[in-house]
Amino acid sequence: MDVNADLAEGFGRWELGDDTALLDIVSSANVACGFHAGDPRTLRAACSGAAMRGVAVGAQVGYRDLAGFGRRFIDMDPAELVDEVIYQIGALDALARVAGTAVTYVKPHGALYNTIVSHTEQAEAVVEAVRRFRPGMAVLGLAGSEWLRLARESGLNTHREAFADRAYTPEGTLVPRGRPGAVLHDPEAIADRCLRIVRGQPIEAVDGTPLSLSPDSICVHGDTPDAVEIARTVRRKLAEQGTPIEPFAPPPALVAD
Amino acid sequence: MDVNADLAEGFGRWELGDDTALLDIVSSANVACGFHAGDPRTLRAACSGAAMRGVAVGAQVGYRDLAGFGRRFIDMDPAELVDEVIYQIGALDALARVAGTAVTYVKPHGALYNTIVSHTEQAEAVVEAVRRFRPGMAVLGLAGSEWLRLARESGLNTHREAFADRAYTPEGTLVPRGRPGAVLHDPEAIADRCLRIVRGQPIEAVDGTPLSLSPDSICVHGDTPDAVEIARTVRRKLAEQGTPIEPFAPPPALVAD
Amino acid sequence: MDVNADLAEGFGRWELGDDTALLDIVSSANVACGFHAGDPRTLRAACSGAAMRGVAVGAQVGYRDLAGFGRRFIDMDPAELVDEVIYQIGALDALARVAGTAVTYVKPHGALYNTIVSHTEQAEAVVEAVRRFRPGMAVLGLAGSEWLRLARESGLNTHREAFADRAYTPEGTLVPRGRPGAVLHDPEAIADRCLRIVRGQPIEAVDGTPLSLSPDSICVHGDTPDAVEIARTVRRKLAEQGTPIEPFAPPPALVAD
Amino acid sequence: MDVNADLAEGFGRWELGDDTALLDIVSSANVACGFHAGDPRTLRAACSGAAMRGVAVGAQVGYRDLAGFGRRFIDMDPAELVDEVIYQIGALDALARVAGTAVTYVKPHGALYNTIVSHTEQAEAVVEAVRRFRPGMAVLGLAGSEWLRLARESGLNTHREAFADRAYTPEGTLVPRGRPGAVLHDPEAIADRCLRIVRGQPIEAVDGTPLSLSPDSICVHGDTPDAVEIARTVRRKLAEQGTPIEPFAPPPALVAD
Repeated sequence: MDVNADLAEGFGRWELGDDTALLDIVSSANVACGFHAGDPRTLRAACSGAAMRGVAVGAQVGYRDLAGFGRRFIDMDPAELVDEVIYQIGALDALARVAGTAVTYVKPHGALYNTIVSHTEQAEAVVEAVRRFRPGMAVLGLAGSEWLRLARESGLNTHREAFADRAYTPEGTLVPRGRPGAVLHDPEAIADRCLRIVRGQPIEAVDGTPLSLSPDSICVHGDTPDAVEIARTVRRKLAEQGTPIEPFAPPPALVAD
Repeated sequence: MDVNADLAEGFGRWELGDDTALLDIVSSANVACGFHAGDPRTLRAACSGAAMRGVAVGAQVGYRDLAGFGRRFIDMDPAELVDEVIYQIGALDALARVAGTAVTYVKPHGALYNTIVSHTEQAEAVVEAVRRFRPGMAVLGLAGSEWLRLARESGLNTHREAFADRAYTPEGTLVPRGRPGAVLHDPEAIADRCLRIVRGQPIEAVDGTPLSLSPDSICVHGDTPDAVEIARTVRRKLAEQGTPIEPFAPPPALVAD
Repeated sequence: MDVNADLAEGFGRWELGDDTALLDIVSSANVACGFHAGDPRTLRAACSGAAMRGVAVGAQVGYRDLAGFGRRFIDMDPAELVDEVIYQIGALDALARVAGTAVTYVKPHGALYNTIVSHTEQAEAVVEAVRRFRPGMAVLGLAGSEWLRLARESGLNTHREAFADRAYTPEGTLVPRGRPGAVLHDPEAIADRCLRIVRGQPIEAVDGTPLSLSPDSICVHGDTPDAVEIARTVRRKLAEQGTPIEPFAPPPALVAD
Repeated sequence: MDVNADLAEGFGRWELGDDTALLDIVSSANVACGFHAGDPRTLRAACSGAAMRGVAVGAQVGYRDLAGFGRRFIDMDPAELVDEVIYQIGALDALARVAGTAVTYVKPHGALYNTIVSHTEQAEAVVEAVRRFRPGMAVLGLAGSEWLRLARESGLNTHREAFADRAYTPEGTLVPRGRPGAVLHDPEAIADRCLRIVRGQPIEAVDGTPLSLSPDSICVHGDTPDAVEIARTVRRKLAEQGTPIEPFAPPPALVAD
């Protein structure tokens, strides 16, 4: 099983999340690329930390929107989106290589992530960008999304993720943030749910319906001390039951600098 | 002899210069990287045009300053500058590769170009960035600059440029913009001066002193119709006397898309 | 009749449109506020030119999106939009006052203009911002829009505009750009249409249906030499038939600096 | 005695400092204006908090440099700086007025603050901007700076500040950050030093030399929990000895919204 989290989401003077703590928990780091968050120095530091620990580096591409942290839908021309995504992956990959690793997968961020669950034109644009950057590259996304469907058709190496701390509808989609119970908070309960997922057991949807998820990766968060504690608990529980935590898109062997 | 010019210096709705005209004139295109100018779509279009014509693509890295077009010195932390330069080269290189070519050299832009003529810490930072991106990479700059001195010491493949339309002091430095006579305007006179340079003959400094330049590249401009006309005249005159116009850092062979 | 156009839409090194020419044509200048375009120096220059000619200054507020020139819908939190609009009006008003005039109306730009034709939450946000800045302030917009409806209900002083160079549907909405015939190009035909509008005569919708518009202002453009020529022709024709060109929201009397 | 601190220095998703805590401590809030930090919503919230408590709002104008948090010198054209400063003051003032108060003084931020201690052209530009915005306006700065000298000559209402937590040279300038002992950390020692200043007693410069400061305001910080604790201690000690904490540029009487 892979565990992924967002990293490098500060910008200049502004810090966000505890990258160092997360790097000891995850097997895959979704590193921001500078458009929604992440200055080059922070990106490189996250890549260096990932390289030293054998953690995979993914390009967490997003809308060009520092003020909105990439969380607002932007009705972009898909042709521009293709080039903006290539730009972001290339920028991060250069820093990753300098840090002794490389970008091995792509996971879109925030509003772009949510948009391409169903927005075919933007989903196609991101697929096109990844495919142009590297045919067959690994990508991470939501099961059932246009993004993963089109990525698969395009020959990309698709992987599905489940969210450790989010409630699911009976249909397997996320309960929207803001709805009651949308976000889980109890570390033990979250970790236990992750264990069920890993063992292939059904979890309970928000209405109690049993729901089978079979993800390739579990997404955890690190932007609050509580979130780090939850992530750490998930990691520990998985370790206790002997589940290896491994990246779905392994990094290249570390070369001495 | 190589002829270079700045390309892709628009941003979104704002256009600047005539990239198509310049691509028929130069052998090396200094393509903006998005920090002082250049959105990803414009970068990719410039790279595609360069790829089709066998024109080399250089990373025209600059300060993060759209409002100032990279023309204002910013007193950056050199360690941050290293990472910002790597980010820019990587972003452009990804778009260049998608366009069927690659970044083969680096030429800093505007205030960064001027700063690293003498600012050792920032010059070291840019050298470090280029070396980390690719050891031995080609770079273009002003003869006698800290930038080229440190680049050479660091094993980079240094190249010197002369400016077709700028007056020189007897010491071989540029007469600062704003001084009388700093910028030349007569296309024929400029082209004739370029011919002298190419033949290894001395030109006249601003005070009449003979001055020998032996550049690897001549820099022309394209941001006004007059500038394009001057550049075209330089190209034609060089062709008439049989001087081959060739990139100092040749692009990879074009691969069918 | 008022004639309005967008001004100050360059940014730093990038120029756009011919502000000086437009200032001799229009009675109301929609001056960009820095979020979709317009650096402070350009804003102040436009305000100074307007002040000297008795042209009214309007705040052309937009989304924070230099890369997209404010032409892309952004799904903003309405509460944030309120504050972003106040910020923009206030910034421009300060420069206008330094130039000896003041902001007397608000006309949203680009995607924000189009969005608040029907998007109630964002329309309410812009209304709220204007009302908070100055109760009863003048605003300019499309007849039949949510924006003008809510503005009127909120006590703002609403004014409707017609577009000199755009085709209309039989329902009185604009034929979307990109459709055949959406944009008119013949200066004489455009000017004649404006004359009909000014005289209270119906114009022809795109399908020939007679359509009565009774706008308070006619919008012209200045971002190409052709557009300036069209605007100049409209102005001349109106003058020839004796129609006074006057701002709907007059500027304060010019105070010597 | 006035106590001032920087507020509203987050940006979008990124928070910085504890504005609520600081508003209960200071009499003057240096509110960021969006160029080095501060989105409009955060600005308005800080202004609202200030208005409710009778805290004065100052415009903390800075370089346009989110990535550098305004801490890097930018070699700007002074004429542009004038307009950029007017833009910032106007934007903040509009939000302050909506919040029931107004900008009553200006205190430049970061690298701009430091630059105009000695850089005459940029100091003149900031003075010119403030004077144009409102003749005779209050400004806050470092004793002995070009900024305050030129502001005084220009008819602005100048006020001098001392730094609670910074070491001074025998000449009365700040020991540069990074030098040993440049920043004080002990809350009680800092508060005691503030008491001496308030009583008109000399403090010790970094080498032990007695140094008399007679500031109009004491600057405290709030960007870490420790800093807030220090500020709170300073406030408490001043209150215990009966020193009234009052703004040097009082806000207008609060008008019900």
